[in-house]
Amino acid sequence: MNSAHSQWFETSIAQLNTLQNLRVWSIIVSLFGDLAQKPGDRINGTTLTRIITPMGIKPEATRVALHRLRKDGWIESARSGRASVHYLTDYGRSQSAAVTPRIYARDPIAPQDWHLLICEDSSGSAALEAALMLPQYTRVNRCTALGYGPRPASLDADFFVASLSQPQVPNWLQTRLFPQDLITSCQALQRALAELSPPADLSPVQVATLRTLIVHHWRRIALRHPALPPSFHPADWTGEACRTRVFDLLDQLPRPSLSALDPGTVG
Amino acid sequence: MNSAHSQWFETSIAQLNTLQNLRVWSIIVSLFGDLAQKPGDRINGTTLTRIITPMGIKPEATRVALHRLRKDGWIESARSGRASVHYLTDYGRSQSAAVTPRIYARDPIAPQDWHLLICEDSSGSAALEAALMLPQYTRVNRCTALGYGPRPASLDADFFVASLSQPQVPNWLQTRLFPQDLITSCQALQRALAELSPPADLSPVQVATLRTLIVHHWRRIALRHPALPPSFHPADWTGEACRTRVFDLLDQLPRPSLSALDPGTVG
Repeated sequence: MNSAHSQWFETSIAQLNTLQNLRVWSIIVSLFGDLAQKPGDRINGTTLTRIITPMGIKPEATRVALHRLRKDGWIESARSGRASVHYLTDYGRSQSAAVTPRIYARDPIAPQDWHLLICEDSSGSAALEAALMLPQYTRVNRCTALGYGPRPASLDADFFVASLSQPQVPNWLQTRLFPQDLITSCQALQRALAELSPPADLSPVQVATLRTLIVHHWRRIALRHPALPPSFHPADWTGEACRTRVFDLLDQLPRPSLSALDPGTVG
Repeated sequence: MNSAHSQWFETSIAQLNTLQNLRVWSIIVSLFGDLAQKPGDRINGTTLTRIITPMGIKPEATRVALHRLRKDGWIESARSGRASVHYLTDYGRSQSAAVTPRIYARDPIAPQDWHLLICEDSSGSAALEAALMLPQYTRVNRCTALGYGPRPASLDADFFVASLSQPQVPNWLQTRLFPQDLITSCQALQRALAELSPPADLSPVQVATLRTLIVHHWRRIALRHPALPPSFHPADWTGEACRTRVFDLLDQLPRPSLSALDPGTVG
């Protein structure tokens, strides 16, 4: 890689880094989700450090984050000769798999079958909170959740359930679902990604660094709520243009295999 | 009228009277709505007393109620020679006309086009209260109203509006819309009306007394909420059977003309 490319890489990383404070454990979750989500996938400690260090994250911070992720049951670590290897636990893998379809959905078409869950005033709020833990539900107000897909029959006793049709969405609901910080984050990511034009000869580790950062920032936007029909979008919401740019770039930065990242230890 | 018929009339009135405490002003509202709702309709004070007295209501109570209704702008009174006549004001007539379709709807088929109004949590409650003043809306909970017919465009800014389709109605909502007192009132009216079999030769004033009582009791049931689709009815709701019986009886007790009730003064 020539020095112009090296310069490009550093500038690009710096630009993505300014978007928001990176939480190291959350970066590692994005990284495993993108590069090593399959059963049997393992990442060498040295490789992990090489991917993360360009983001300005010190090895000490990575060790602390790995410790936390082990304590939370997301990641296991093992020795392999003189090296350490890290991999998702079954729990971590299932958590990662649960959100992968939403993060990696290229198709901006929202689910078509929406319904409302409406709870009884005070006595129903615990049931509503429980339903909102399910990934398909989004809060409308303290009595109402909006969700897609089949209606869980187990909710029948708690909720007045109705299919959503011909919704008319007022400003307050657009603002609630797409608050200003989300719109601003999305616009900032879009601006940063607009300037990114990766050269062809990046190393697998550099590709991994860029992918991890792009996926990480996008994940924080994409997981705020399910893909909602366009009538729910405020006029200044640029999420779909941002999504398009994310997948353009990921296509230009194909996911490196673990063996390419770490030729010595992973088969 | 023979004494068997007179006995029947007194027993029937007594039976209808036990259903609930009669508020005299409310009886008079039912009476005008049934017998003298058209512009120009006037009821002689003597006739009014003859219709109401068999319900056990003293002339003094009728005078107090008429005074209240005049003060509230529902009714006007005038002298006509030595007699007094009473009639609905424009306001009283419009109030009466607004609820007439619901009271006199024979067809138990509920409106087909329902929608939900969902307000923002705290800031939206005033708008919800205002919408609930409209006759087509019923409260679901503190954030939600259920209504039928066209959606008023003026509500667009305040509410998340969605057409209701495939509703699944939990017990708490059935109980909220059809509380025990309403179910009990309806069953009691149904029992009372089941035993009523009017003879053919009642006087116009007796017919008016019976019609007023039947309409009055039914009105207090029919106006509790709009006719809801059957999926909203609790298993022990007998409103539709009661409605059928009400209109059977009203058909057997055709509305007397004002001239038949009061041949002397009203043309």
